[in-house]
Amino acid sequence: MTRKGRFITVEGTEGVGKSTNLAFVSELVRSWGQTIVQTREPGGTPLAEQIRELLLENRSEIVSHKAELLMVFAARAQHLEQMIVPSLERGDWVLSDRFTDATYAYQGGGRGLDCKLIEQLENCVQDELRPDLTIILDIEPEVGLARAAARAELDRFEHEDIAFFNRVRSAYRARVEAAPERYLLVNAGQPLQQVQADIARGLESVKTRWDTQG
Amino acid sequence: MTRKGRFITVEGTEGVGKSTNLAFVSELVRSWGQTIVQTREPGGTPLAEQIRELLLENRSEIVSHKAELLMVFAARAQHLEQMIVPSLERGDWVLSDRFTDATYAYQGGGRGLDCKLIEQLENCVQDELRPDLTIILDIEPEVGLARAAARAELDRFEHEDIAFFNRVRSAYRARVEAAPERYLLVNAGQPLQQVQADIARGLESVKTRWDTQG
Repeated sequence: MTRKGRFITVEGTEGVGKSTNLAFVSELVRSWGQTIVQTREPGGTPLAEQIRELLLENRSEIVSHKAELLMVFAARAQHLEQMIVPSLERGDWVLSDRFTDATYAYQGGGRGLDCKLIEQLENCVQDELRPDLTIILDIEPEVGLARAAARAELDRFEHEDIAFFNRVRSAYRARVEAAPERYLLVNAGQPLQQVQADIARGLESVKTRWDTQG
Repeated sequence: MTRKGRFITVEGTEGVGKSTNLAFVSELVRSWGQTIVQTREPGGTPLAEQIRELLLENRSEIVSHKAELLMVFAARAQHLEQMIVPSLERGDWVLSDRFTDATYAYQGGGRGLDCKLIEQLENCVQDELRPDLTIILDIEPEVGLARAAARAELDRFEHEDIAFFNRVRSAYRARVEAAPERYLLVNAGQPLQQVQADIARGLESVKTRWDTQG
């Protein structure tokens, strides 16, 4: 694949302020004269959105962890082939609300699935493709969950307990530690203005690096 | 896993007479005094049936072959964990309308996906579990498709062309050749009475082998 556009993902646990900050990142990238396509995971195509519904729906049936993992990667394969890869090849930037880091965090950290299995699926579905930058909005799960609970009905994941979200958060942080150059870790517990100042400063510094690399 | 029941699957291309012959196998096994649970793939649990709907639905969106494969195995993981394995552990026999041989035939043979990838997913989702016996109802795809077309609206797979089904059939036959002891290959182009005589004779001979093994 010839890639011309940049692929940015935004991650974080529930109630961390992803929507607001995704809009902020979009605007910033547009101000640089780039076309940016905003999307989300699971989802991003009609079929992938249908898989998302199955994943998030509250249900009495116990969901196999492996079934959940395979559904996530099925939606991702569709999203990549029909949406992300064509957009990047066209030269657009792609901004996704969650991507494979969420799988390592939720299905790996949260559910306790083997990371080697996730890695195999990642290689199978994405080949060499990885985000150019992942912004991780980090917050105490207690604080985020209180925000999330206030705004809407809880989905199947949001019903998990605090220990689950603590594992998810630790998994995100471990990924940053393992490859800091690909991540921008932002303290999302700060006032919004400060969060966005941190995002803007981080993104601009990464852009300078990308511009220099050509 | 301690397995007490036997796991039998029935496979074949469209219009091969699976429903009629599944009922026949069920009856025969019941006549031996066994409890038999009849199920199908993709499907067999509420979530797996929802995935089946997404797989079979005709849609304008092009479906990624890998997404299709991962959805099939997601449904299978759920089916195994919630239905097949508990049934076998209880000592019931399980009879499934299609299982992983269909994945090798349709996604491997039909779609041309790498069999090593299918094998990896098979090992990941099933561990050591394989059917004790797979009955393959074999017919010229032209004949089967004419039957299928006469009875109902065609699903997404049934809309494939004859070359696709010829590849599916070849893949089934290749699986029989590679491990003949696990398969019962039946000529489904014969009159029904003859097909069922072949199935009964084959099943009874396998049962004798199982009884001898203890």
